[in-house]
Amino acid sequence: MTQIPNIHSHRFCLSAAQCDAQMGLSPAMLTQQIIEVATEHADLLGVGFKRLEQGGTLWVLSRIAFEMNRYPGVLEPYIMSTWIEDFNRHFSQRNFDIITPEGEVLGYARTIWVAIDINTRKPADLSGISSIASTVVDRPCPIAPPGKIRPATEPEIINEYTFQVSDIDLNRHVNSARYVELVLNQMDLDTFDAYRLGRFEIIYHHESYYNDCACVASGMVKDALVTSISVDGTVHCLARSIMKPKN
Amino acid sequence: MTQIPNIHSHRFCLSAAQCDAQMGLSPAMLTQQIIEVATEHADLLGVGFKRLEQGGTLWVLSRIAFEMNRYPGVLEPYIMSTWIEDFNRHFSQRNFDIITPEGEVLGYARTIWVAIDINTRKPADLSGISSIASTVVDRPCPIAPPGKIRPATEPEIINEYTFQVSDIDLNRHVNSARYVELVLNQMDLDTFDAYRLGRFEIIYHHESYYNDCACVASGMVKDALVTSISVDGTVHCLARSIMKPKN
Repeated sequence: MTQIPNIHSHRFCLSAAQCDAQMGLSPAMLTQQIIEVATEHADLLGVGFKRLEQGGTLWVLSRIAFEMNRYPGVLEPYIMSTWIEDFNRHFSQRNFDIITPEGEVLGYARTIWVAIDINTRKPADLSGISSIASTVVDRPCPIAPPGKIRPATEPEIINEYTFQVSDIDLNRHVNSARYVELVLNQMDLDTFDAYRLGRFEIIYHHESYYNDCACVASGMVKDALVTSISVDGTVHCLARSIMKPKN
Repeated sequence: MTQIPNIHSHRFCLSAAQCDAQMGLSPAMLTQQIIEVATEHADLLGVGFKRLEQGGTLWVLSRIAFEMNRYPGVLEPYIMSTWIEDFNRHFSQRNFDIITPEGEVLGYARTIWVAIDINTRKPADLSGISSIASTVVDRPCPIAPPGKIRPATEPEIINEYTFQVSDIDLNRHVNSARYVELVLNQMDLDTFDAYRLGRFEIIYHHESYYNDCACVASGMVKDALVTSISVDGTVHCLARSIMKPKN
């Protein structure tokens, strides 16, 4: 029997068709790849979608934080590695690094995953898969964990968006990476031409569903653009985006 | 020197994180994968983005037609293969099949690609890469080519959408697959629960740019939902969607 590695790596190389207007990996696609590589590793460890479904539960992402020194460019190979830093019956904390084959560190990410009951959508207990605690790895991830985010008291950029068919994923709720797009779309193309997203954090509080009308509201709080996505006055997620001049 | 194959194949297997609300490959992601696998093959053949950029031109997709018997499900492997059916100095016609490892044909696609000048955005001549004519393969692709599409005279479903940062690709225009999302979002989630997109065609007439406000208008013409995406009264693309009851 092959031993499943405690650190799972996935090599990527973006074709021109996958690049954003800055000719590289978009932060939303980075988020999607973080989720995909986590999902792959969970599948390999036998604690993926299929296993949780048997117990009537789903993995859902609760938080992400990432910091990128730079984003990979067109046709530039990079390796995303992931490992579990902490696990208990309430959540799993999974970290990532993104490195070139030459060893240049492009960035790091931290994620927190919880399980919910498929029917009640309430938090579920992870005790049934506690065997994965044995895969915990002590590998450095030198970025601050996702912290508390307070919404801007007087948001200056406010947009509305109604969730469409293309925004809904297999869990029948809005795809986690789609929120990242909505958050970053609060800024304009000129901003992304001049700056890179240096640090990003998002906290998912509540699920959004098909046809929900979201209010996306942003304002500066110190050095960060803080964005809330709300439905019917309830905050569904909060994000903090820190832009840095390009290297 | 390794011979580059005239038929290029890419194996996919969707993780749960990549699936749509129907627990499989979404038609928009199928479109994106068609574009990516075409781009990969062009890169291998030495006629990719980098090569065309040297001559001041870009590949742009002009038309797609695909027919799917069924869409691959979660964690189900499938192989997308592509080859050039026809090539001249005006366009390249590239076909695809999507097959399971057991040999079940999931579907076929046909695409037409043209080049445009990076600066003038006018059609460019492909004579400089005519060597790829030698890679033309006579492999069956038993679906009708993309045909002429007449817009619905009295569209019943009309929505507006302003293109955002997340919709723009490396060519600084709206990503081809994003139009497919906008077209399919004219239908609701119940429709996709009961029906699959059996045949889809799209013709890209004009580029759309950041901040363009698009009018998306759909109406039934015979057995198809015909959708136009227009900016300032000019039709930028036309699509025809034929839904079939699920197998």
